[in-house]
Amino acid sequence: MALSREQQAEIDALRAEASETRRASVAALEEILYQPIAVLDHGFIRVIDYMGDDGAVVQAARVSYGRGTRKVSEDRGLINYLMRHRHTTPFEMCEIKYHVKLPIFVARQWIRHRTANVNEYSARYSILDKEFYVPAPAQLATQSSSNRQGRGHVLAGEEARRVLALLSEDAERCYAHYVEMLNEDEAGNALDTGRDGLARELARMNLTLNVYTQWYWKTDLHNLLHFLSLRADAHAQYEIRVYAEAMLETVKRWVPLVYDAFAQYRVGGAQLSAAALAVVKRLVRGERVEQGGSGLSPREWRELMATLGREG
Amino acid sequence: MALSREQQAEIDALRAEASETRRASVAALEEILYQPIAVLDHGFIRVIDYMGDDGAVVQAARVSYGRGTRKVSEDRGLINYLMRHRHTTPFEMCEIKYHVKLPIFVARQWIRHRTANVNEYSARYSILDKEFYVPAPAQLATQSSSNRQGRGHVLAGEEARRVLALLSEDAERCYAHYVEMLNEDEAGNALDTGRDGLARELARMNLTLNVYTQWYWKTDLHNLLHFLSLRADAHAQYEIRVYAEAMLETVKRWVPLVYDAFAQYRVGGAQLSAAALAVVKRLVRGERVEQGGSGLSPREWRELMATLGREG
Amino acid sequence: MALSREQQAEIDALRAEASETRRASVAALEEILYQPIAVLDHGFIRVIDYMGDDGAVVQAARVSYGRGTRKVSEDRGLINYLMRHRHTTPFEMCEIKYHVKLPIFVARQWIRHRTANVNEYSARYSILDKEFYVPAPAQLATQSSSNRQGRGHVLAGEEARRVLALLSEDAERCYAHYVEMLNEDEAGNALDTGRDGLARELARMNLTLNVYTQWYWKTDLHNLLHFLSLRADAHAQYEIRVYAEAMLETVKRWVPLVYDAFAQYRVGGAQLSAAALAVVKRLVRGERVEQGGSGLSPREWRELMATLGREG
Amino acid sequence: MALSREQQAEIDALRAEASETRRASVAALEEILYQPIAVLDHGFIRVIDYMGDDGAVVQAARVSYGRGTRKVSEDRGLINYLMRHRHTTPFEMCEIKYHVKLPIFVARQWIRHRTANVNEYSARYSILDKEFYVPAPAQLATQSSSNRQGRGHVLAGEEARRVLALLSEDAERCYAHYVEMLNEDEAGNALDTGRDGLARELARMNLTLNVYTQWYWKTDLHNLLHFLSLRADAHAQYEIRVYAEAMLETVKRWVPLVYDAFAQYRVGGAQLSAAALAVVKRLVRGERVEQGGSGLSPREWRELMATLGREG
Repeated sequence: MALSREQQAEIDALRAEASETRRASVAALEEILYQPIAVLDHGFIRVIDYMGDDGAVVQAARVSYGRGTRKVSEDRGLINYLMRHRHTTPFEMCEIKYHVKLPIFVARQWIRHRTANVNEYSARYSILDKEFYVPAPAQLATQSSSNRQGRGHVLAGEEARRVLALLSEDAERCYAHYVEMLNEDEAGNALDTGRDGLARELARMNLTLNVYTQWYWKTDLHNLLHFLSLRADAHAQYEIRVYAEAMLETVKRWVPLVYDAFAQYRVGGAQLSAAALAVVKRLVRGERVEQGGSGLSPREWRELMATLGREG
Repeated sequence: MALSREQQAEIDALRAEASETRRASVAALEEILYQPIAVLDHGFIRVIDYMGDDGAVVQAARVSYGRGTRKVSEDRGLINYLMRHRHTTPFEMCEIKYHVKLPIFVARQWIRHRTANVNEYSARYSILDKEFYVPAPAQLATQSSSNRQGRGHVLAGEEARRVLALLSEDAERCYAHYVEMLNEDEAGNALDTGRDGLARELARMNLTLNVYTQWYWKTDLHNLLHFLSLRADAHAQYEIRVYAEAMLETVKRWVPLVYDAFAQYRVGGAQLSAAALAVVKRLVRGERVEQGGSGLSPREWRELMATLGREG
Repeated sequence: MALSREQQAEIDALRAEASETRRASVAALEEILYQPIAVLDHGFIRVIDYMGDDGAVVQAARVSYGRGTRKVSEDRGLINYLMRHRHTTPFEMCEIKYHVKLPIFVARQWIRHRTANVNEYSARYSILDKEFYVPAPAQLATQSSSNRQGRGHVLAGEEARRVLALLSEDAERCYAHYVEMLNEDEAGNALDTGRDGLARELARMNLTLNVYTQWYWKTDLHNLLHFLSLRADAHAQYEIRVYAEAMLETVKRWVPLVYDAFAQYRVGGAQLSAAALAVVKRLVRGERVEQGGSGLSPREWRELMATLGREG
Repeated sequence: MALSREQQAEIDALRAEASETRRASVAALEEILYQPIAVLDHGFIRVIDYMGDDGAVVQAARVSYGRGTRKVSEDRGLINYLMRHRHTTPFEMCEIKYHVKLPIFVARQWIRHRTANVNEYSARYSILDKEFYVPAPAQLATQSSSNRQGRGHVLAGEEARRVLALLSEDAERCYAHYVEMLNEDEAGNALDTGRDGLARELARMNLTLNVYTQWYWKTDLHNLLHFLSLRADAHAQYEIRVYAEAMLETVKRWVPLVYDAFAQYRVGGAQLSAAALAVVKRLVRGERVEQGGSGLSPREWRELMATLGREG
């Protein structure tokens, strides 16, 4: 992660200022406000702003469910209840805004989550920096043979070296030609006064998908947790998962009770189909069940046995 | 507007507390944070929380349009430019949360704006208060003869008295029967121990549409302005317009530069069709144009003449 | 359900016409197209239009997951897989449009689902019909003592009669006064020429929440299933559940493979938290587990035992 | 545009089939259903499915605005009225689904429109075809000097040749290395059995942004028109504008009355700010107005004069 001196000065200035507010504030999140958290080789996330805290979720739930609840439940119990029963609207009452720097191919996965507000750096207006993602050797994996969407073992020796060389050289060369075609510096002055230069909106098409872009991304807590449940999952691609994991740490600082409920009821649990539930009931009663008579397909059977931590 | 003593104590407590924050704060909005602003006979709005300020809009625009803009435009000019050219995403970077108390028939109009987060008081869980809207005499208008959606002149004397009496008596009687059918007090104790009482989710259907409900309503600045452009408009029903007008005042405190741009480019301006623009061009050249040869229907012609402040 | 003669004639005319199309068509749904299916005492749903079929879900999945899948999976297996793993975007490729007539208090629950397109009959423009919901005696239930949101046993004898009388009389009286205040017939002619009449947008506030409204409601299959999973559930209020159940039957006709997958993986299954899953694993291994050492709260323990069909 | 033989056979098969439907059908759109319309050098759009027609907009408007309208307005007038006054919900009652093949840098602009359903070809699962966009010489423009977001004049001679060569060679080389790193054919067999091959989800990052992707994209008519008003506009980048223009032609076939209203009230018209309207009123009255006393900034003055077809 390379912050320009200018960016670092801006962050320092923002962090030095403080004002009084009557709004709910969260000291643990204030501590890291504006500070970049490094992700991948040149990327980062940083929290830019937030609205609400654990208490705002409770407060919204109590508007919906009325005065009566005030006596019955204390905050943790109520938040657990909301999470367990998927009462999602109270979680929508908190909002957070991140600044994210990420490779374009990761940005393309990320943007499929439509329930967020986005302002992305525009290569129609501006010149992209020369920064691109090259995986660490430990991340250079083969295609998984069992899973069409995943990775297998790590590439070794010569093949790994060759892949890293190709990725770096192609990104470098494409970027160099991008600059050559643009034929201008940041201030808009021609590099080579003998030529015109190509429009930015065209020249950018020569860049590779591992070039870094950046955006402001703002969403509510419910949609953030949905995003994180998919992207911090073991099935998510490593390159987006590391962003999700860094964001989870910020959620833990921001709304610790919600974070605990999320960890308990969303992560590490299981969704059982009607047929799978029927099998579980039989197993719990001590019956012996085989895939054959289970009502599950071989694939579903394997998935259920894995969930229950048993041999198929 | 009647706040219970309990509610007022809660507001006072929240307003008394202050904490330090590194987030952007807006003193003029902090001043009125949590405080109810009266609307109609028993309703209110109050700002519960907010994220961002004028600077957050500028900051987001500069992420999108790049470093270069920093030199060219100062904040007001940039915000005006964004508003004029309908670049909406930077305005989505600010968020605000209101607590609103409003008659059910107003809530039904309001909720059609789908791009907001809502937590409404639930009459399945809780008992609604005995509060209903009765228009002030000056608001008792006839159906407009020219506009199927609007109001004409104010009702006079006996008819006005009769209408007010009917509205009050029917709301009172329906509420009394609601309580009778529920047969319980707030704490859930039977009022008349000889009977069972009807479930809340059923009894509520006996209430009239002018009974007050309340909700937390959270949205981003772009969607808020869109809501206000429709609901603070002269064509909006009076009973929702007064809410929109009260909210506009909070926008003015919160993001004064955005408010000015909104007033200049959204309110008080005009949208011309291709044919209307052609007429305007001819008029500006000093040509004499009649509806007949204008390419406009008689209705469109009247609308255009009204826009230009001319006799049709 | 009372259709006017005019409405019935319109439906008959639409059903009599047929045209050729190259689009995917579903004969079982065409059979009931436009036809009202009665719900509650005066309500209905009817399918007005649809786009796509089971094949459209498969087709979209294959665009996303590529050519390779074509060989591996046949349609049912692929749809089950998508449902099981919550790959939701292929289900968004189908769309359906309903015409629904429903009591206002049901409409208020329904509209909280924001991911749909709605055109509702407007009482600002038009006069509402004299139709209101009065529950069948079997639906007149007490408040549940165990569940703040539900119903208990059915009201008996005199109390039931009294409730039905109140609901009917209040709705009748409020409607009569609505008409009196409007002082106009459908065509806009004054009923009593000695008075002015109140604007429609005001008079409507005197109506009770059990008056019927109607709307066109259009959504995609993913969001429809989400709506149905919440509203066809045993915890949903009876008066909205009957609408959801009627719609489920139309889904069965429209996309039978998706319907089966939904029934198998969304309905009748269970969501286990991390702690609940740990308990299930121990039970399956034949361990004896008590609430005390389970890591579950008493309430969660009861919920889990109910899920597993065991005594707590 | 290169369709594989397999794809063409599929299209021919779909077009050969027809079924009877009671739904609204549009013969002019059926004519081109499934057929690709070429855009750029290898891209296309094709209409895959649709729901509704001009009549569906009218029908929805009449639900909202009531029976009365039936007599007053005929369809064209009503649709014009809805468009002029931005009553958007009736347009949401129509839906359309496209299959689009487009360069990745265009897809990244397009996806910012969030109110649509998307299924994109996934390079995690599948291998992308060797197809990339290279602009026609007439599209090789310089950066605009007056507009930071636009194009200036066309590049000439040697510089143009150089740009085309760079774009082609870099895309070719990056694609060749992508294939080398994957080390597998479509069926998943190793090309070079001495090596492992890199996972698809990683190898794709070596591709350039002009490589083609494809997706199914489904949206309602209101959101489609909003998309087209921005993307068929002269300020849109040429490479997305040609897609929007091709889609506009399909809208013309599908809903000709809506298309005409869109052309009249959205395209070719003008939005005036309050200050600009004040200037227009003065001009129409025959007053002489200069920028100085106009209340407009020099930039706004130039924009208004351009709108009115006058010299500044």
